[in-house]
Amino acid sequence: MKTRAAVAWEAGKPLQIEDIDIEGPRAGEVLVRIIATGVCHTDAFTLSGDDPEGLFPAVLGHEGGGIVEEVGAGVTSVKPGDHVIPLYTAECRTCRFCTSGKTNLCQAVRATQGKGLMPDSTSRFSKSGRMIHHYMGTSTFSEYTVVPEISLAVINKAAPLDKVCLLGCGVTTGIGAVLNTAKVTPGSTVAVFGLGGIGLAVIQGAVMAKAARIIAIDINPGKFELARQMGATDCVNPRDHADTPIQQLIVDMTDGGVDYSFECIGNVEVMRAALECCHKGWGESVIIGVAGAGQEIRTRPFQLVTGRVWRGSAFGGVKGRTQLPGMVEQAMRGEIDLDPYITHRMPLERINEAFELMHEGKSIRTVIGF
Amino acid sequence: MKTRAAVAWEAGKPLQIEDIDIEGPRAGEVLVRIIATGVCHTDAFTLSGDDPEGLFPAVLGHEGGGIVEEVGAGVTSVKPGDHVIPLYTAECRTCRFCTSGKTNLCQAVRATQGKGLMPDSTSRFSKSGRMIHHYMGTSTFSEYTVVPEISLAVINKAAPLDKVCLLGCGVTTGIGAVLNTAKVTPGSTVAVFGLGGIGLAVIQGAVMAKAARIIAIDINPGKFELARQMGATDCVNPRDHADTPIQQLIVDMTDGGVDYSFECIGNVEVMRAALECCHKGWGESVIIGVAGAGQEIRTRPFQLVTGRVWRGSAFGGVKGRTQLPGMVEQAMRGEIDLDPYITHRMPLERINEAFELMHEGKSIRTVIGF
Repeated sequence: MKTRAAVAWEAGKPLQIEDIDIEGPRAGEVLVRIIATGVCHTDAFTLSGDDPEGLFPAVLGHEGGGIVEEVGAGVTSVKPGDHVIPLYTAECRTCRFCTSGKTNLCQAVRATQGKGLMPDSTSRFSKSGRMIHHYMGTSTFSEYTVVPEISLAVINKAAPLDKVCLLGCGVTTGIGAVLNTAKVTPGSTVAVFGLGGIGLAVIQGAVMAKAARIIAIDINPGKFELARQMGATDCVNPRDHADTPIQQLIVDMTDGGVDYSFECIGNVEVMRAALECCHKGWGESVIIGVAGAGQEIRTRPFQLVTGRVWRGSAFGGVKGRTQLPGMVEQAMRGEIDLDPYITHRMPLERINEAFELMHEGKSIRTVIGF
Repeated sequence: MKTRAAVAWEAGKPLQIEDIDIEGPRAGEVLVRIIATGVCHTDAFTLSGDDPEGLFPAVLGHEGGGIVEEVGAGVTSVKPGDHVIPLYTAECRTCRFCTSGKTNLCQAVRATQGKGLMPDSTSRFSKSGRMIHHYMGTSTFSEYTVVPEISLAVINKAAPLDKVCLLGCGVTTGIGAVLNTAKVTPGSTVAVFGLGGIGLAVIQGAVMAKAARIIAIDINPGKFELARQMGATDCVNPRDHADTPIQQLIVDMTDGGVDYSFECIGNVEVMRAALECCHKGWGESVIIGVAGAGQEIRTRPFQLVTGRVWRGSAFGGVKGRTQLPGMVEQAMRGEIDLDPYITHRMPLERINEAFELMHEGKSIRTVIGF
C-alpha cells in the first residue's frame, strides 16, 4: 500500500512530502496509522548529517501517537483499533536488560533498529523499488508506519493523541529523568541547563517531585517566561554574568551548590558545568542531552571523590509499555500538563517549517497532524 | 613537652627522626600517644612535593592508633586512657554535612586542617621556635600528637592498636567504598583496578558483600597471589593484552561489563577504563584514587546516557566516630582480616625504609611501632 510521508532523502536537505510504498506488518509487527507527531531536536540532529549513525534515505520522526490498523502473525498484546504510542526504546520483557530491574534500555531490537531496519533486517518502506530506512524504530513522519509489537505502548482511547504524542519522547524524557533517574526528593534545589522541551519537562518533573527551588538556565532569555510559568523559581542567563563561570554562579546562589542538576542541551562544556554546580557531598548531575560525535566530557576526579555523582538518562528511565500508559493517565488527570509545550500545530505538508521554527528557537514543540 | 617525631622538613627529602616540641591540648583538643601507625601512599604523595596542598615542615601520618593522654577544656566525648583512632575526616555531628544524612564529609575543621593547623589556626608542633605543620588533622608520625576531639573514634580497648590502626585509612576506605558508596549487591561482578592496600580492601569488601566474581587488575603480577588469597576470582595484567584496551578486555570477559568497578590508583586513564568496563544500563564506577594536581577524567557522555554511573568515595563514606568503632569490632571478630595487609613492621627510626618499600611495590602496609 501507499503512505504519505516526509522523506529525508539526504543529509542537510529539506524533507520531501510524497507518497511512498509501505509493506504490511510481518510476524511480530504492527501497522500503525499515525494521528499526530511532535518534531524533536533529535530528528533535526539526524537530518543535519551530524549524527554519525544517521542513515539516508529515511522516514524520521519518533514522537508520535496513532491507532493500530493491522497486526502481523503472532501479535497478541495489541489489536486493531488500539491507541498506541510508538517506542524508540522497546520493552521486550524477556531480555537481560528488561529483567534486570535496573534499566529501561531493552536490547531486543537494538541492533536492527540502529541500522534503520525491522528486526528481520529488512525495511517496510520503499519508493520505486528503492529501500527507505526506518528511524529509531518508529518513523512517525509517515501516515502509516510499521513497528515491532514490543515497541508499542497501548494507551487509553480517551486520551487526545495530538497531545499525548509528546509523551513518546521529550516530556517523558524530562519528567522521567527527574523522577526515575535522579529521584529528586521534596525540598531539593534543582538546576536545569537548557530550556527546550526536555528542559521544561525537567522543570515540570521537579515541580511534581516538590523541589523547593528550581533554577532555569539558558542563553536565550526568551525562554524564561515559559520556564517560570512551568515552575522555575530562578532564571539565569550565563551571558549576563560573563565574568563568572556558570557553575560558580550557581554555587554562590545556592550556598554550596544544587542537590540535582540536569543537562538538556548536548553540550559537553555545559555537562561539566552541570556537574560542578552540584553540592559537595551529595549533588547528582544527570546528562540528558546528546553530544556531537566523538565529543567528551571532562572534570577533575576530585569533583566525584568529594561526593558528586555523574549519571545519564535515556527516555527518562521509563519502561514504555509498562509505564507510559500511566503517564498518559496522569496527563488526562492534569497531573502532567502537555499544553505549554505545544507552541505550534501544522499539517505534514509544512513540516520543514517546524524544523525552521525549532532552529530559530521560536518553538518548543510543533505537533504535526495527519 | 617533647615528642619524638619523623619530621618532613622539605619536599622530596627523607623524614628526620628527632625530638620536637609539642604543646598540650587547648579547648576541644586531645593529646594522644600514638602506639602504631601505617605508612600510606598519601603520605608519600605529600612528601614527594606533588601534592599542591602539601605544606612543610610537617609531621605526616594519618593511619594511626593510640591512647588518650590528656584532654583540653570542654572535651567530653573522650577521656585519658581511651583507645582511639585519629580521623582525617572529622565528624562534628552538627554541621550541614554531618546532619544531611548523605555524606561523611564533615566540614567543621576542614579549612584549618587544610592549612596544617588546629581549629584555632595555630600549630602545637615546633622545633627551636620554628612552627611545624600538622597534617590531615592527625600527624601520626609522632609519638604524641594533638587532634580535635571531633577527630577521634573511641574504640574497644581490647583491640590491637598495631593492627586496627589500618582502619584509620586504607582498609576502611576500600571496604567502605564497596559497602557504603557502591553498595555492592550479592551475586555482583566487580572489577578492582590497582592492588595496593586500598585495592585489596576493596576485594575484601566485595567478598563481604558476597560478590560472585571479583576481577583484580594490576600491571604488577607480584600482587596477584595476595589478591587471590583475599578473594579475587580473576587476575588480569593489562600488559599481557597490549593489543586490547583493558576496558574492552573486561567487557569481553564478563559478557557486557561489570556491575561495579573501583579505581584504587589515582590514574585518570585508569579511571576512564574503570568506568567504561561497566555494564551498560546499570554499571557503577567508584573513583577512590587521588589524581595528580590538575589532571582530568574524560569519557564520552554516551557512557553515562546509556546507564553507567560515575561516583567517588572518600574514607569509604564512613562516619568515623559513629562507624569506625563497629569496624574495629568486626576486625576483632575476624570479619575484617587485617593481617594480610601488614607486610612489614619497624620502629619509627626506620620509617624512611617503609617509604622505599612502598615505592618499590614490595610492601602493602608497613606498620610503624613507637
